[in-house]
Amino acid sequence: MPCTTVVNAYRELAAEGLVVGHVGRGTIVVGATGDGADGGHARGIPWSQLFTGVTEVMNDPLLRDTMLVSARSDVISLATGIPSPDLYPIETIRALLDEALHAAGQELLQHCPTEGYPPLRAALAEWTAGEGQPVAPDQVLIVAGSQQGLYLLARALLEPGDLVAVESPTYLGALQVFRAAGARLLPIPVDEHGMRVGLLEDLIGRRRPKLIYTLPTFQNPTGATMSLERRQRLLALAARYQVPVVEDDPYGALRYDGRPIPPLHALDTHGTVIYLSTLSKILFPGFRIGWIAAPRPVIERLALMKQIVDLDTNPLAQWAVWAFLDRGLLGQHVARLRQIYPRRRDRMLAAIERHCAGMLTCERPAGGLYVWGWLADGLRARDLLPEAARRGVAIAPGSSFHPDGTGESTLRLNFTLPREEEIDVAIARLGEAIAALRASRTGGPERREAARATPIV
Amino acid sequence: MPCTTVVNAYRELAAEGLVVGHVGRGTIVVGATGDGADGGHARGIPWSQLFTGVTEVMNDPLLRDTMLVSARSDVISLATGIPSPDLYPIETIRALLDEALHAAGQELLQHCPTEGYPPLRAALAEWTAGEGQPVAPDQVLIVAGSQQGLYLLARALLEPGDLVAVESPTYLGALQVFRAAGARLLPIPVDEHGMRVGLLEDLIGRRRPKLIYTLPTFQNPTGATMSLERRQRLLALAARYQVPVVEDDPYGALRYDGRPIPPLHALDTHGTVIYLSTLSKILFPGFRIGWIAAPRPVIERLALMKQIVDLDTNPLAQWAVWAFLDRGLLGQHVARLRQIYPRRRDRMLAAIERHCAGMLTCERPAGGLYVWGWLADGLRARDLLPEAARRGVAIAPGSSFHPDGTGESTLRLNFTLPREEEIDVAIARLGEAIAALRASRTGGPERREAARATPIV
Repeated sequence: MPCTTVVNAYRELAAEGLVVGHVGRGTIVVGATGDGADGGHARGIPWSQLFTGVTEVMNDPLLRDTMLVSARSDVISLATGIPSPDLYPIETIRALLDEALHAAGQELLQHCPTEGYPPLRAALAEWTAGEGQPVAPDQVLIVAGSQQGLYLLARALLEPGDLVAVESPTYLGALQVFRAAGARLLPIPVDEHGMRVGLLEDLIGRRRPKLIYTLPTFQNPTGATMSLERRQRLLALAARYQVPVVEDDPYGALRYDGRPIPPLHALDTHGTVIYLSTLSKILFPGFRIGWIAAPRPVIERLALMKQIVDLDTNPLAQWAVWAFLDRGLLGQHVARLRQIYPRRRDRMLAAIERHCAGMLTCERPAGGLYVWGWLADGLRARDLLPEAARRGVAIAPGSSFHPDGTGESTLRLNFTLPREEEIDVAIARLGEAIAALRASRTGGPERREAARATPIV
Repeated sequence: MPCTTVVNAYRELAAEGLVVGHVGRGTIVVGATGDGADGGHARGIPWSQLFTGVTEVMNDPLLRDTMLVSARSDVISLATGIPSPDLYPIETIRALLDEALHAAGQELLQHCPTEGYPPLRAALAEWTAGEGQPVAPDQVLIVAGSQQGLYLLARALLEPGDLVAVESPTYLGALQVFRAAGARLLPIPVDEHGMRVGLLEDLIGRRRPKLIYTLPTFQNPTGATMSLERRQRLLALAARYQVPVVEDDPYGALRYDGRPIPPLHALDTHGTVIYLSTLSKILFPGFRIGWIAAPRPVIERLALMKQIVDLDTNPLAQWAVWAFLDRGLLGQHVARLRQIYPRRRDRMLAAIERHCAGMLTCERPAGGLYVWGWLADGLRARDLLPEAARRGVAIAPGSSFHPDGTGESTLRLNFTLPREEEIDVAIARLGEAIAALRASRTGGPERREAARATPIV
């Protein structure tokens, strides 16, 4: 999640007095006093005239406000996508790093191959293959988190103007990467069975996307999982039109109910799927280790890109992840998460029933980190944000995940970062906030009509 | 250095039988058997038709051959840019990581702000300022090695077709980044006093570069240091034409002789300098920690880019570097390197005098990691490569560092990766290789003329 990071950029602006942030009132730029604004440099560089347009896409004041609220110490944040810090295997990692530096310090503080530490590539190939079709170690590229994987894919495959089919809603960081690459987006709505592949089928021949991006399992933000039938139909479409499918799968291992559905890459017989995953959601995000499993020509091309972008990924962190996998500890750790996380999910759903009945409708996700909700009466999450902040809880407004700005009544709630006992408190505060927002609305019919017109998917 | 990484990509191709590499004979592609070449996928994706042109710039068979040789276990490599592994402070790093995870494991295995771990930003601001003008913590961005710093700068400042003034020769990784951004290059020759700023002065008004890239201190690959007079002239030019100067300074702390010359950023009164450095050359490369110090508008823009590219940098590694700095250990470590490295340099220069007299001319660099040499009689480094490889030594051919393909008789020798006792052996082998190459040449006058026509800068 880019959450911590947006807020920081925002804070810097605020510290300089360039913006005045009022939570929920949007963000007002009070006066960029000229460029190269370090004071007294009359002949300084006119920086803003020199910058490329790449980063213009990052301006989402709503998200900035959200993250500003999340960072407050008096706030319980349900807005992030971070696994429970109290479950991080810190002592094991300590012992592994100690062992690594003792055994191979000179090697592990050196450069390593751009493609990744070879034993980790092999271990992740095996982990990715699971019970399905084999993946070779040289079909795996280690990346500095799945965000880097997405970035490399966009740079290797997208020219400005190219069209990318994305789920609506979908992972925010992917939208930012695609937009920064100059791509146009073709939003395909998501329902409780994942991407509505039938709609894609209607469009693909006419619109000819360059890439299809999907989170088929415990989707971010909705928690929805694509049915087997839709998966097969999507793969057939991709093969027929020769369009690569990027399968983003950070959450697939975190199933709490029901039987697993194979990932797209395991069902793929035409070599169309580029599989992307990360340790950030099943271990912790700080090591910045993700991976891509794909046909060899893709891996080779991405490795050339990575060489330009940052040469290689921290080999000590790669070694520790390899050892964690190799000794069977990752499997054990995931098994533990699969016992603890559904309790938190259920606690959150029960609290929602208790505190938000009639005001917030949620589904019960079969896995992952998120509960997705719809506010009743056409209330908007952006209006809820300041009410919630005032009561000490932060939520992620759903509209930010929608490429077309729809979904204003939706919101995403994370149940893994807050401590178990905080969940009730947070949802009680949320209930009060929604009630207060509802009470403050005149609720005129024209308002309701407008809200109904918003497609909520 | 992208060395380890090129060779790895090359090896993968070799392993697949797609290339046959003969050291020094170039690289022959024996048959790319169609795209999506995973066998049996008749309807697979035509990958090579989908890739963007970004990575086309990476194809340097000479460098691939060099790195392939470097990786051989029977070879002493003088071709890399890696500090001495036997001087890595491994036990201290072990203790620091242990302390960090004990004290703040949950925090340090988490995300951290995109801009960097705040105490590290403050510590590097102080380190960068040195005795010169102050640098504020919010003028520092932590990056995943200076390669990432260069990449972010290129993406934030360069549009396709923009012109970048670069030294000739210069750091290879920078050339690759600029080319990948679609920039054109304006090569400015380097002599023993660094970039020939007078030549830039003649061109800047007519050619209007968007950016000036320089390694003013112990330049890679030549070891040359820009004089104070040229530094001041360069800064005046940059201010007059409002062209940002990127000062790449990985080696500045490694001075062995003479008095320090202030870095450009310390002399800059117009806010034109973007300063870039890294821990990779003064500590070790594996942590992937570099930094940029620049005017605030630049830092903010780069942070937005970094958020798209990889979100944030490993906070545990950042903490360890911070503690190493904060406790005065980096200063002590650099002091130690400044005692040991000049002994290796002098040993290499003495060995060159003994084994390569009349065949190889070198200057004595006042700091850094490299000795730069010119082969006599118009011999070419690319021809020397296979002779040297056969005798168990690898060198970096100078032409790869020249943006215009000149410098064929130049080569770069690193004196920090080999163990001290290996230096004599390596240079003796190199002397034999040059003698053998010379003996094999008929030395016709037309060849000598051609060689003389090559501008060696």
